[in-house]
Amino acid sequence: MTMLLALRGVTIETWRDALAAAAPDLPVVVAGEACDPATIRYALVWKPQPGLLADLPNLQAIFSLGAGVDHLMGDPTLPGAPVVRVVDPDLTGRMTEWVVLQVLMHHRRQRLYDRQQRDRVWRDLSQPAAREIRVGVMGLGVLGLDAAKALMALGFDVAGWSRTVKGELDFPAFHGEAGLDLFLARTDILVVLLPLTPDTRGLLDGALLAKLAQGGRLGGPVLINAGRGGLQVETDILAALQAGTLVGGSLDVFQTEPLPADSPLWADDRLVITPHVAAESDPMAIGRYVASQIAGFERGEPLQNVVDRSRGY
Amino acid sequence: MTMLLALRGVTIETWRDALAAAAPDLPVVVAGEACDPATIRYALVWKPQPGLLADLPNLQAIFSLGAGVDHLMGDPTLPGAPVVRVVDPDLTGRMTEWVVLQVLMHHRRQRLYDRQQRDRVWRDLSQPAAREIRVGVMGLGVLGLDAAKALMALGFDVAGWSRTVKGELDFPAFHGEAGLDLFLARTDILVVLLPLTPDTRGLLDGALLAKLAQGGRLGGPVLINAGRGGLQVETDILAALQAGTLVGGSLDVFQTEPLPADSPLWADDRLVITPHVAAESDPMAIGRYVASQIAGFERGEPLQNVVDRSRGY
Repeated sequence: MTMLLALRGVTIETWRDALAAAAPDLPVVVAGEACDPATIRYALVWKPQPGLLADLPNLQAIFSLGAGVDHLMGDPTLPGAPVVRVVDPDLTGRMTEWVVLQVLMHHRRQRLYDRQQRDRVWRDLSQPAAREIRVGVMGLGVLGLDAAKALMALGFDVAGWSRTVKGELDFPAFHGEAGLDLFLARTDILVVLLPLTPDTRGLLDGALLAKLAQGGRLGGPVLINAGRGGLQVETDILAALQAGTLVGGSLDVFQTEPLPADSPLWADDRLVITPHVAAESDPMAIGRYVASQIAGFERGEPLQNVVDRSRGY
Repeated sequence: MTMLLALRGVTIETWRDALAAAAPDLPVVVAGEACDPATIRYALVWKPQPGLLADLPNLQAIFSLGAGVDHLMGDPTLPGAPVVRVVDPDLTGRMTEWVVLQVLMHHRRQRLYDRQQRDRVWRDLSQPAAREIRVGVMGLGVLGLDAAKALMALGFDVAGWSRTVKGELDFPAFHGEAGLDLFLARTDILVVLLPLTPDTRGLLDGALLAKLAQGGRLGGPVLINAGRGGLQVETDILAALQAGTLVGGSLDVFQTEPLPADSPLWADDRLVITPHVAAESDPMAIGRYVASQIAGFERGEPLQNVVDRSRGY
């Protein structure tokens, strides 16, 4: 029973150490090291080389390092073993912190106060109450629900949108194509926590942005995206800012990452740009999560948070 | 039965309109307008001219426009009528928004990411979890308790300090002179929501800052003051930043307001400077609050949120 680590763009040693701490008896092999493919029972992956997982006859489960699994789903050779996403309270809390920070930065006009500080200007700006600001959370998975709860606790007027109908929620929710326009029309601050799938790629384009509430208490709508860069059309975001149909935004994810130094997104101080750090994985917490899932599975319990391959998340 | 408006530094018309909307039958006179002093039964005041309230034989209550009443307490001619502070859910919510925003800005290193954005630098910074950050809330009145609750909901490790023992709280609390050093020693981010009294004037000085936790997960302590400027010694804050015993701060209040353009506080981007806007009074909400207190008092009910003159808040 061996765990294959196939991680690109992260520090392998950190993850090997975290797994060793959480599951000291689990043999670990790093992709590229010599091993018998038949011994590999589990894989922990992030952006693995396509095809890498194709010929592992005894693979039982594929653990994705983050909540998003779009880095895997494009591989036509991906074997049929269940793909398990990380759902970790630590990761969820970090995402909620980032979302709350960004909503408050726009609500409380922090970037304008930042500019006034640089110019040594003492001037108060008109300040609506949170209840006057309609926040719309797109994507009502674990992350979206947690962010919505935190924003409601601060008094914001929260609604949600999801692809399919959700069970009982304690805020108004819209769903599907049919509910999208109504949802957007009542949204001053749009918080996007959607997965990237063929359906959602490029969804945040000029046509969608034009449907957000105009003339709300912030002077126009704000876009906050912590989902995936592939959801957004960056030229459309810039055009909407230029046209004044968008008054600000916070982006943690980009069509190309790292965001190229010549991207005009960096230069507009109505946009808050962070380098894909909204919810960084804590290796120790995720090591414990993976170890606990494996222990349960080996006892005959079902895996948790298995991706629905047909919908892609 | 007339209400005297004695408001300096604010737009009188706004408040007159708000009172007219909330209590259409209450005659209102503005300080300086001719009137019979014997008709004045209530006063709504902000930084009133000392002595102004001294000769009103039928004054029943003095309403202070904000939560802090230090602008009144220095007047030795202040009559004995009860002083009522504004405790308004709207004002409390606004203060909590500001506190949560500022705590998150420091916790999530927003000023460093701001700088990286200006420099077009893509680099992730080490990010502790909220549970690793010890926030200390100084002042456990309505504002302090609400801020503490919101910070706990985000996962921060919250403790509190108050002058006197409080009833049962759902976080660790320290009190009095005896508890202060222990409280400071376990505090990475100090949130100050104290009233300004002779006891608290100048409390936030170099000696106090030196007692905050050194070497926590943020590299050193952070000071957030939304109480009153008179609590802080600004030269000591700058010296602590210079020495590295303080790594950042957020100040909404200052020893001199407006903060003079030549103050060195503006220039240090580890400090977030806002122009005393953390919890701006909403005239309509406060008009309703005052009208409802007066209506209750006229029915023979006791006034709410009366200031204890002996302790000064």
